[in-house]
Amino acid sequence: MASPIHKGFTRKSLLDYSESQRGSYEKTLRELVEIPSVSADPKHHTDVSSVVSQAAALMTQLGAETRVLETGGHPLLHARFDHDPDAPTITVYNHLDVQPAELAEGWRSDPFKFTKDRDRYWGRGTTDDKGPALAALWGAKYAIAHDAPVNIHFLWEAEEEIGSPHFESTIKKHTERMKTDSIVVSDTVWVSREQPACPAGLRGLQGFRISLETGATDQHSGTAGGAARNPVAELCQLIAACFDARTGEVKIPGFYDDVVEPTEAELADLQKSGFTTEAFMRDHEFKSLRVEDPVEIMKRIWCAPTFEVHGISGGYQGPGVKTIVPPRATAIVSCRLVPNMDTDKIARLVESFVKEQNPDAEVEIEHGLPAYRGRIDGPHPDAIRAAMRFAFEKDPVFVREGGSIGAVVSMENVLDAPVFFLGLSLPEHGYHAPNENFDWRQAEGGMLAFADYFRRVGEMGRGR
Amino acid sequence: MASPIHKGFTRKSLLDYSESQRGSYEKTLRELVEIPSVSADPKHHTDVSSVVSQAAALMTQLGAETRVLETGGHPLLHARFDHDPDAPTITVYNHLDVQPAELAEGWRSDPFKFTKDRDRYWGRGTTDDKGPALAALWGAKYAIAHDAPVNIHFLWEAEEEIGSPHFESTIKKHTERMKTDSIVVSDTVWVSREQPACPAGLRGLQGFRISLETGATDQHSGTAGGAARNPVAELCQLIAACFDARTGEVKIPGFYDDVVEPTEAELADLQKSGFTTEAFMRDHEFKSLRVEDPVEIMKRIWCAPTFEVHGISGGYQGPGVKTIVPPRATAIVSCRLVPNMDTDKIARLVESFVKEQNPDAEVEIEHGLPAYRGRIDGPHPDAIRAAMRFAFEKDPVFVREGGSIGAVVSMENVLDAPVFFLGLSLPEHGYHAPNENFDWRQAEGGMLAFADYFRRVGEMGRGR
Repeated sequence: MASPIHKGFTRKSLLDYSESQRGSYEKTLRELVEIPSVSADPKHHTDVSSVVSQAAALMTQLGAETRVLETGGHPLLHARFDHDPDAPTITVYNHLDVQPAELAEGWRSDPFKFTKDRDRYWGRGTTDDKGPALAALWGAKYAIAHDAPVNIHFLWEAEEEIGSPHFESTIKKHTERMKTDSIVVSDTVWVSREQPACPAGLRGLQGFRISLETGATDQHSGTAGGAARNPVAELCQLIAACFDARTGEVKIPGFYDDVVEPTEAELADLQKSGFTTEAFMRDHEFKSLRVEDPVEIMKRIWCAPTFEVHGISGGYQGPGVKTIVPPRATAIVSCRLVPNMDTDKIARLVESFVKEQNPDAEVEIEHGLPAYRGRIDGPHPDAIRAAMRFAFEKDPVFVREGGSIGAVVSMENVLDAPVFFLGLSLPEHGYHAPNENFDWRQAEGGMLAFADYFRRVGEMGRGR
Repeated sequence: MASPIHKGFTRKSLLDYSESQRGSYEKTLRELVEIPSVSADPKHHTDVSSVVSQAAALMTQLGAETRVLETGGHPLLHARFDHDPDAPTITVYNHLDVQPAELAEGWRSDPFKFTKDRDRYWGRGTTDDKGPALAALWGAKYAIAHDAPVNIHFLWEAEEEIGSPHFESTIKKHTERMKTDSIVVSDTVWVSREQPACPAGLRGLQGFRISLETGATDQHSGTAGGAARNPVAELCQLIAACFDARTGEVKIPGFYDDVVEPTEAELADLQKSGFTTEAFMRDHEFKSLRVEDPVEIMKRIWCAPTFEVHGISGGYQGPGVKTIVPPRATAIVSCRLVPNMDTDKIARLVESFVKEQNPDAEVEIEHGLPAYRGRIDGPHPDAIRAAMRFAFEKDPVFVREGGSIGAVVSMENVLDAPVFFLGLSLPEHGYHAPNENFDWRQAEGGMLAFADYFRRVGEMGRGR
């Protein structure tokens, strides 16, 4: 499938380009990172709008036909760099919203201050997903300037971190302007810096907030303790009934019914992925794990569903011991799902199990994201492979990824176009963690890979 | 045992006195309540010292020989109104420190602003224990002014709410100046406003902070979930292993070994205590309870040990769902103990059970308070009965109380003097709860009861 090297798309000319663009790339990344576009937090509502406006202004300035689309939630940006109606159209998906971040969680610098230390960029959103978004855009700028025979559209979402609740309904209203031949997503993580990786699938996600209220205010555990219900302890008991935290085994009947075990071929891919337990523990700063065997870890994080408690709160949390019976407690939990598991079915299973265990518990079901099984064969995956090799001088492995991107399944269904992945983040970049970072090597490689991918897909023509 | 009514100690003259003193009582209570003397919170350290200084200045101004004693923690106040070396000495114990309080917990007014609404006083510490402390002092002022044949000492602590960690060692150093014939404690709660009560025993308390750390920072539950340990969920599982929150049954082997069940006589007292399930639920604002039978409730809150979770925290607690694997979690728990149970033994049992269940859990053992079985027969309890009847025109019942006062056992042991109780708080006063309050009826009755008690015990002479 390899195409002849188009004039201007040599590695040398692209490296010169990226070097000359480094200043403007970093300036733009700084501007976007310093807008705290936390989609989960109502107090950052206007920040999310303003990161979208800022990105729209950038797109317009670069010559795109740009629209900010109302969604009912945070806005969605669609920008078209059209070249020729007969050329193939590639839509690049990224997101501009970020995970919450508080200095007190262990950040070494203000999460919403862009900090540069030689080749490294620190700040919430640097790697997830503003840095990769801009690398793709800078790659597109080059491809456009060098007449790659392709229409490049950008679909930048601002609700990815809250499960894309309005994404599907919005793109349904704009299928005409969003018509595309293929989609490429840059929001995934390599196995290691030495081993580029493309997802062969994504886990889905079904989140819940479980709360229990048994009183109105704090009460004295001396005068009432023993007869009073304790909502914190009942919630603990409920969580312990849902799954065994030591092994990870979910105890909700029917939970594993639809899980398809990884194939022999997939297991073989895991073996050669370059994943090591040591690097995984170091990158995530874990003291210990549920299991230590690397293949077992990969199976658990990429190919198996989970029950996870993201947070719990209730009662006194200050110094010393305050002898109260608290009135209420809340836990934030989710299940990661694998292909063939259904979000609605899991939502119903969890909810009814919880209500059966404790009828007074309230279950709030969050928007679910289906799991996704990707394509790893064919001309587009081959173009991804070639572009990665062109940029990073190493072939990527195709392994499943543990995270979830709600928009992926929606785009395939609504836009009727296949989705491919060209991720740039590394395990040590701190996805959803404090001290999130990105680096110039991945940004520069991203510009090269995207420019090369745009050219290759353009030269493949339509109808492939 | 009744003594002839001493001139000046009629109900009429005491009611005139309390009415004339109401303004100065309320002014002083306001001053003390508005000092946020939260002993558990290091940021209120100087407030605790200053409430003690303020109280010492008051004692000195009233003519007491006053000392503020260093303890190694918060200071201890000892003030002596000596009348005659041959007269009996009564030491009145109260405490000046208070439970933590935050407006956001559901307070209708600033907890450290004294608010008066007709006969009701609102604010942290109004009922626990500044209001009763001052009622006892105002009773003493009358008794002293009317030459009751008694030496009255005040021992006001500032570490009661943190388990009196320096109380015993400090009084051991000052046994000479603290020499006393009997002790009276005013820090307990009636069964209802209609039913005065004196504790026939107190539960003990052994607190713990249990924490578990399995990582360093938040990690992405997509990229690591399944292999990563979840410290919040493991802590939930641990708590669920310690006790059944639905029934209250503690599952730690040996926990109940030393419990002595209430006697037939005690059970009969419970039956006639005037306790009702409806009032208990209303006063504590509970939506439901573990059990509904009133005798079963009283057995649980007064005569049985508990395992209680006061608070838990770990991971994300904001809006929506933040899909992290958190690095650590903490639970604040305690056990209430009944007479014959040993704090050290329970501390060891809980600690070793927790470590056995989860070797990575850290257990911080708080200072323990032994349970106490009080006296309900003899001249002093009879004087308490008579003073209560004099003040409130109704006989008190003697039932056990669910709370814990660490100083009680220390005072009996170190000062070799019997402890009696003359409590003034009501269930609806919000002990350890938001909207804590006290009221003039209880303050006024307290002045009458203490004045009458001082006279009676004085007239009993020494050697009783």
